[in-house]
Amino acid sequence: MGSIDLGPFPNIDGHERASMLDTDDPLGTFADRFVRTEPDLIYLDGNSLGRLPVATASRIQRVIEQEWGDRLIRSWPERWWDLAYEVGSAIAPLIGAEPNEVVVADSTSVTLFKLTLAALQARPSRTRIITDDLNFPTDGYVTESAADLAGGREIVPIRSIDGVHGPVDDIIAALDQDTALLTLSHVVFKSGYRYDMERVTEAAHAAGALVLWDLSHSVGAVPVDLDGAGADLAVGCTYKYLNGGPGSPAFLYVNRQIDSEIGNPLNGWWGHERPFAFDLAFAPAPSIRRFQTGTMPILSLAGVETGVAITREAGIGALHAKAVGLSEFFIELIHSHLGPLGFELASPRDAGQRGSHISLRHPDGWRIVKAMVEHGKIIPDFREPDNLRFGFAPLYTSYTDVHTAVVRIAEIVDSGLHLGFDDARGVVT
Amino acid sequence: MGSIDLGPFPNIDGHERASMLDTDDPLGTFADRFVRTEPDLIYLDGNSLGRLPVATASRIQRVIEQEWGDRLIRSWPERWWDLAYEVGSAIAPLIGAEPNEVVVADSTSVTLFKLTLAALQARPSRTRIITDDLNFPTDGYVTESAADLAGGREIVPIRSIDGVHGPVDDIIAALDQDTALLTLSHVVFKSGYRYDMERVTEAAHAAGALVLWDLSHSVGAVPVDLDGAGADLAVGCTYKYLNGGPGSPAFLYVNRQIDSEIGNPLNGWWGHERPFAFDLAFAPAPSIRRFQTGTMPILSLAGVETGVAITREAGIGALHAKAVGLSEFFIELIHSHLGPLGFELASPRDAGQRGSHISLRHPDGWRIVKAMVEHGKIIPDFREPDNLRFGFAPLYTSYTDVHTAVVRIAEIVDSGLHLGFDDARGVVT
Repeated sequence: MGSIDLGPFPNIDGHERASMLDTDDPLGTFADRFVRTEPDLIYLDGNSLGRLPVATASRIQRVIEQEWGDRLIRSWPERWWDLAYEVGSAIAPLIGAEPNEVVVADSTSVTLFKLTLAALQARPSRTRIITDDLNFPTDGYVTESAADLAGGREIVPIRSIDGVHGPVDDIIAALDQDTALLTLSHVVFKSGYRYDMERVTEAAHAAGALVLWDLSHSVGAVPVDLDGAGADLAVGCTYKYLNGGPGSPAFLYVNRQIDSEIGNPLNGWWGHERPFAFDLAFAPAPSIRRFQTGTMPILSLAGVETGVAITREAGIGALHAKAVGLSEFFIELIHSHLGPLGFELASPRDAGQRGSHISLRHPDGWRIVKAMVEHGKIIPDFREPDNLRFGFAPLYTSYTDVHTAVVRIAEIVDSGLHLGFDDARGVVT
Repeated sequence: MGSIDLGPFPNIDGHERASMLDTDDPLGTFADRFVRTEPDLIYLDGNSLGRLPVATASRIQRVIEQEWGDRLIRSWPERWWDLAYEVGSAIAPLIGAEPNEVVVADSTSVTLFKLTLAALQARPSRTRIITDDLNFPTDGYVTESAADLAGGREIVPIRSIDGVHGPVDDIIAALDQDTALLTLSHVVFKSGYRYDMERVTEAAHAAGALVLWDLSHSVGAVPVDLDGAGADLAVGCTYKYLNGGPGSPAFLYVNRQIDSEIGNPLNGWWGHERPFAFDLAFAPAPSIRRFQTGTMPILSLAGVETGVAITREAGIGALHAKAVGLSEFFIELIHSHLGPLGFELASPRDAGQRGSHISLRHPDGWRIVKAMVEHGKIIPDFREPDNLRFGFAPLYTSYTDVHTAVVRIAEIVDSGLHLGFDDARGVVT
């Protein structure tokens, strides 16, 4: 485990300290914007599926009853046609983008496929795709599919030395004149390591490569400045920190500086300049909308709209400050309560190198997570082989949640309660 | 206009006859399963966006409040993970397929892209893709994108002689040993022409080509027997006659006989055999699930589940019988009421060659549709340049709806009410 800063109040009882931090939390009232049916449940998996905003239930009810049930097909021109573009524009300031650089499109995987392939097509003579072995596995599958289609490309996954930190120097050293694309998760899904977007982007550009950032574990939790970093392409998930709802559609970003180089390899009528003219010839929309393909799943898209609105109201600066506060408090507490019980920090110790989730490793990780869910009223998640992952969604997680969780985990492991669970792996929750 | 069979009751007043037909309608009570906020509105656009089933509003409310709000991430293993597969299995009998041949996936366009590209990859040395010029334009855009990626393929759109009927003989004549794929809409979007799936599939197979059917305007309205016809691949839309809701995700079909030849060109974690193992190497699921890519939009998917359940309860035989009844009644009435006002039938006269929508042509089509929507309380849709399209969704459209619509249209055109509208095109409704 890395070195731990015990913080300024080492002699104050953890529970009391958590209460003080909650009292001072400028985002404290945002928890009331979310449905909480089990008051004693501590939900630390908002980085996988965000909680339900109170406003979303009524918003989607309105979409169903009024927009669909009452207005029927008339809602396309009245409400739905522009929705994916409008929600994309609302996401833009959260990631340092202009409105016309962002649009909501398909699932994260399909969206990523489109931009990956587009990037490879924009660098036809370059043969290498650089990534790392910390990237989300589906990003790898998608990259492979795109590489197969683009032909003659080799994927080079740079290895992380410790499985926690991104291999920045090795990535930068690997970039060369044959590199078409560097594709990375900005915040990696397991350890929570966060890349220095500006530095890495600059190095890729120095080699003439394009950069594609997956912001799935970043957006809504850490500041992102795509335009400022000169990033080329990005995608991001909306059902994690943006609380868009299960499987809500992803967004994509194309930097306006490279707009003319990048085409949508998967054209469909939603990317046509006049979709309802039903022209047999395709003509791309003169905006970021040309990266859309098929009809948007409106009910799932409407959830993104309310989720993004709450995130913007809280402000990304305040959200990140609280994410750091929660994570640092958690690390202090695991040092004092969990270190002696065999847990190891599997995330960077430096908050400047992290997103808003923390991974721990423990040889009995699987059984501990099972016991946490079934006896501890705590929901984290588990990643093979021994990773306990805790997400601190700053909109609705309190310092008291963090403290209570750590105390409960310590009780479980200390009492050996987890030893009653089978170690055979299945779905965790 | 084709010759019109005036039916067995030429001397009975149309309104009275409509009432009699409604009384005898075995599906008459199904109208109550759908939300109807404007009792006097006649909705003839269910082939574009189906009405809201009453059960859907409460089902999605339950998904939001209980499955998402209360159970949170636990709903993945409890409810959502298998949902796209289960809904696919429920769709299967509506299209003559086995459960493991159908799965719900992405938007119709993306789903079509995946299967088109898969088919081209399965016929690497064949250079031609045959289609027709009646196909839905986005199918053409998607085919073009797939053809570009597969390389060295030429798209050959066979022309319909009258713009109404599919050029069956010319298509069959065009199939040759260079043909990789024949891709057609089973029921074409504008004229409603319905291909003889068995005959066309057999001809394609005789040439060694694969066949991909777009069932968007068929499923839920006409019988489809993919397995019986020996079809290879199919996709279909769920928000038309299946009433899945705006932009609900599409399904795909892969005949189990050619399962081993066809791969998913767009791999993602939802097609992995063990998605939560987070293996860096992709391994396809040993089922139709391998054609999924990204996380499903669950709220939009849940709408498909209830829509399909109602369709199955009514039964495709009864639905098709009523679709024919409504369409034939409409054609009789336009002959008697609208023929003298300059309308022309732009659909096949033979019900055996039609889906469940009918197109009319009129030089003032655009203005008439505007007047219908704004003064007539009728919602059809309009397709350039002069096409009035009327969908007869058999679950909730009555014979009285059909009669009233024709009477109102006749009144509008007879009185010249439509002449008060601008002919400048925009979005119709």
